[in-house]
Amino acid sequence: MNKGAQESERLLNHLRRKDKAAFRLLVEEMQPYDLEQFFLRLNEFERRRFLYLLETEEVATLLEECDLHTQRHIINSLGKHQIADVLALMSRDDVVDLLGSMESAERTNLLTQMEHREAAKVRALLDYPEDSAGGLMTDEFVSIHPKASVQDAVSLLRRKAEESETIYYLYVQQADGTLVGVLSLRELILAEPDQSIEEIMVERVISVPVNMDQEEVARIMSRYHFLALPVIDPARRLLGIVTVDDIIDVLIQEAEEDIQHLSGLTSGLDEQAVSSWRSAQKRIPWLMLLLAIGLATANLINLFQPTIAAVPALTAFMPMVAGMTGNAATQSLALIIQRLPHERTGVSFVAKMLKQEGLAGLLVSMVCSFLFVLLVALAFHQPRLGLVIGGAMFATLLLGTLIGTLIPLLLNRMNIDPTAASGPVITTLNDILSLLIYFGLATLFIDQLTHP
Amino acid sequence: MNKGAQESERLLNHLRRKDKAAFRLLVEEMQPYDLEQFFLRLNEFERRRFLYLLETEEVATLLEECDLHTQRHIINSLGKHQIADVLALMSRDDVVDLLGSMESAERTNLLTQMEHREAAKVRALLDYPEDSAGGLMTDEFVSIHPKASVQDAVSLLRRKAEESETIYYLYVQQADGTLVGVLSLRELILAEPDQSIEEIMVERVISVPVNMDQEEVARIMSRYHFLALPVIDPARRLLGIVTVDDIIDVLIQEAEEDIQHLSGLTSGLDEQAVSSWRSAQKRIPWLMLLLAIGLATANLINLFQPTIAAVPALTAFMPMVAGMTGNAATQSLALIIQRLPHERTGVSFVAKMLKQEGLAGLLVSMVCSFLFVLLVALAFHQPRLGLVIGGAMFATLLLGTLIGTLIPLLLNRMNIDPTAASGPVITTLNDILSLLIYFGLATLFIDQLTHP
Repeated sequence: MNKGAQESERLLNHLRRKDKAAFRLLVEEMQPYDLEQFFLRLNEFERRRFLYLLETEEVATLLEECDLHTQRHIINSLGKHQIADVLALMSRDDVVDLLGSMESAERTNLLTQMEHREAAKVRALLDYPEDSAGGLMTDEFVSIHPKASVQDAVSLLRRKAEESETIYYLYVQQADGTLVGVLSLRELILAEPDQSIEEIMVERVISVPVNMDQEEVARIMSRYHFLALPVIDPARRLLGIVTVDDIIDVLIQEAEEDIQHLSGLTSGLDEQAVSSWRSAQKRIPWLMLLLAIGLATANLINLFQPTIAAVPALTAFMPMVAGMTGNAATQSLALIIQRLPHERTGVSFVAKMLKQEGLAGLLVSMVCSFLFVLLVALAFHQPRLGLVIGGAMFATLLLGTLIGTLIPLLLNRMNIDPTAASGPVITTLNDILSLLIYFGLATLFIDQLTHP
Repeated sequence: MNKGAQESERLLNHLRRKDKAAFRLLVEEMQPYDLEQFFLRLNEFERRRFLYLLETEEVATLLEECDLHTQRHIINSLGKHQIADVLALMSRDDVVDLLGSMESAERTNLLTQMEHREAAKVRALLDYPEDSAGGLMTDEFVSIHPKASVQDAVSLLRRKAEESETIYYLYVQQADGTLVGVLSLRELILAEPDQSIEEIMVERVISVPVNMDQEEVARIMSRYHFLALPVIDPARRLLGIVTVDDIIDVLIQEAEEDIQHLSGLTSGLDEQAVSSWRSAQKRIPWLMLLLAIGLATANLINLFQPTIAAVPALTAFMPMVAGMTGNAATQSLALIIQRLPHERTGVSFVAKMLKQEGLAGLLVSMVCSFLFVLLVALAFHQPRLGLVIGGAMFATLLLGTLIGTLIPLLLNRMNIDPTAASGPVITTLNDILSLLIYFGLATLFIDQLTHP
C-alpha cells in the first residue's frame, strides 16, 4: 500500500510538470481502482489536465470505476465527440447504469450522440428494472453454434477477447438464440481442436430468468461458484450474462441495506458526500413513529397511575423490562432475517422456527427472570416485588421472542420485505403488550405489594 | 428450479432401483451444489448407496460443497483407503478447512493416510490462522518463469487445467520463487505464440501479505474485480492464491456477523441444526448485561422518587425518551460501522464523521423535540411539562447520536471490533446519561411543573 502511495506521488509530479512521457509510462500499468483513487484527490484544474492526458480507453475504464456523482462530473468536462467514443468503449452494463441515473432529456441527448446500433442495444438494456437480473446483465458475451468446432471456438474467443465482459465461458446458442449449452475456457483448452462443441458442451446449463431479483441471482451465483451466469427469456433465448464482480457489489449493497433497515434508517444513504440534512431526513420518519408509539404508551401508562403511586418501585424497573424485551425480540429477528434467504418459507419452516425460537425463548426467559427474582430478594429484600416483576419479565421476554420470530415470517409470506418493515411492527407490539403485562400483573397483585 | 426438482426425483428413483447406468448418466451432469442438496435429503441407508455409486472424484466434489458437520458424516462412512484418494482429489484449501476443524488425533490419523508430499503441503497450509489470507489460500496455482514463451505457457496451462484452482491467471515467478508478474488467460490468448512472458506480463502485481485479515482481502478483491489474488511472504515469494468464490463466502459470513453483533447476539450461530439450548446460551450473556444495567438504572431512578411522586406524568413519558435516544444512537452506529471498512480512521475521519453526525443529530433533535412540545401543548394542554420533557428529549437525542458516533470510532482506534463491542457500551452510557438528564431537568424545574 505504501508503494501505491509513492507511485501516486510520482504520477502527480509528472502531471504537474506536464511530463507526458513519464506520465504515460506510469499510468499504463495502473489498475482501474487506483486510477479512480488518484482522480478523486485531484483539484478541478488537475482533473482536466489528467483527463486530457488519458487515452480514450483509459477514460472509459475510469468512468466504469467511479460512482454516479463523479461520472457526471467527468462527462460534463468531456467534449461532445469524445463522450460518444468513451461510451462506446465502456462495458455496456456500466453505460446502462450511468444513463439510467440521468434525467430523460440528458439521456436522450447522449443516446443520439452514440453510434446507432450501440444506442439501440443500450436502450434495450435500459428497459429492465435496475435490481433485476436484466438490470445487472451485459450483452457482451461470446456465443457459438453447437455444430462449430473447438478450433472455431478458440479463434472466436481470440477475436472477441477485447470487447467481451468475460471470455471464460462460451455459451452455445442455436440459430434462433436458444441457449443449449455452456463450455468453460478450461474445458475448451483441454479439448481436441477438431471436436465439435456439441460433443463436449455441458447441456444442463444453470441460468436465471431476466426478471429475477438481484438478491436471488447473487444467491445462485454464490451457491454454484460460477464466474458468470446466463440470463434467459421465457423461451430460453440467451439475453445476457451477469458477472461475478457485479454480484460482489450486490452482496455488499444488500448487506448494508439489511444493517440500515435493522437499525431503523428508512432507506440507503449514498456513500459519497451525504449532506447532514439529507441524512437527518432519512432518520426522522422512524423517530417520528417512535414518538407516536411513545405518546400511545404514555396514555397507557397513565391508566395505571394509581398502581404506580402505590408502588413507586415499578417506575424504577420499567426501563429494564422494556429494554430486555426489545432486545430479545431483536435477537430473534436477526436470526430469522439471516435464515430467510437460505430456506423456503413453507408452513414447515415457520413451524420449525417457532418451535426452535419458542424453546430458546422459554429457556432465556426462565434463566433471566429466575436470576432477577433471586437478586431482588437477596439484595433488595423485597421478595414479593421481585416475584411480580420477575413474573412479568418472564412473560414479556417469551412474548418478545415470539413476536421477533413471527413478524418477519408473516411479513415475508405477505411479500413485504421483512428487513425494512419488521422493526416498526415489532417495536409497537412489544412496547404496548409488555407495558400491559407489566402494569397489569402489578395491579392484579397490588394487595400483596402494598401490604407486606 | 422446478426442473431441478424433477431431476432430483428421477435420480432418487434410479438410486432406489439400483439402476446404475441411468444414475450415472444423470449424476455426471449435476452441479456440486445440487449434489449436496440431493445428498442432504437422503436417509442414512440411501446415503451409503449414493456414496457407493459415486466416482471418487465426485465424492471429493461433494465433500468440498458440504458444511463441516456433513463432511464428518461422509468421512466416517468411507473406507480408510478411499479417504486418502478422496482427500487427494479435493481442493487443497478445502482439505485444510476440513482437517483444521478436527481434533488433533483425528487430523494426524488422516494426514498419515495421505500421500507423503500431499500431506506435507496440507500441513504447511494448516499453520496459517483460519481468517487470514494464508488460511483462505490454496497453493494450487499455475506459475511460469519470465523467460518462457507464450507457447510454453499455453501448454503448461493445458497440463495443469485439471488440478489447478484457477487457470485464468498465470503467475510469473523467478527461480527463487519471487513473484514478478501476472498474466491473465485473456492476455495470453491475444499474444503471439513466440513472444516471451516477460514482454507481455503485467509487472505491477496487486498482491496481499499472508497474514492479512480475510475482511481486508475481500475488500481488495472487490475493489479490483480480480478472480484471484496472489498471497506473498515478506520476501515477495508467492505462497498461494485466494479465489473469488472464497471471497464471496467471506463477504456473506462477515455480513451475517455484523448483523448478529448489532442485534446483541454474542457470537455467530451455526446454520445447521442449532439446538435451542445452545442458541439460548449465546443470547443470555447480553440479556444478563442488560439486567445489570437495568438494576443500576433502577437505583438511579429511585433517587428521583420525590420528583416522580410530584409529577407522575414523568413515568409515562420515560419509555418514549429512552426508546428514541437508543434508536438515534443505533442509527449513527450502523452508519459508522458501514463506513469504517471503506475509509482510514485517521483524526480527520473522526472529525469529519463527528461534524456530519453532530449536525444531523442537531437537526433530528430539534425537529423531534419541537414537534413533541407542540403536541403536548395542543393535545394535552400542558405546555410547561412539554417544554421540560421536550428539552430533555433534545439533549438526550443529540447525546445519543454523538455516543453512537464516537464509541465505534474510539473502539476501532483501540483495535477492538466495534460491531461486537459497541452495543453494550452505547446502551450503558445511553441509559444512565439519558435518565440523569431526564429526571435531572425535571427536578431542576420542579417548581414550574408543580405550581401551574
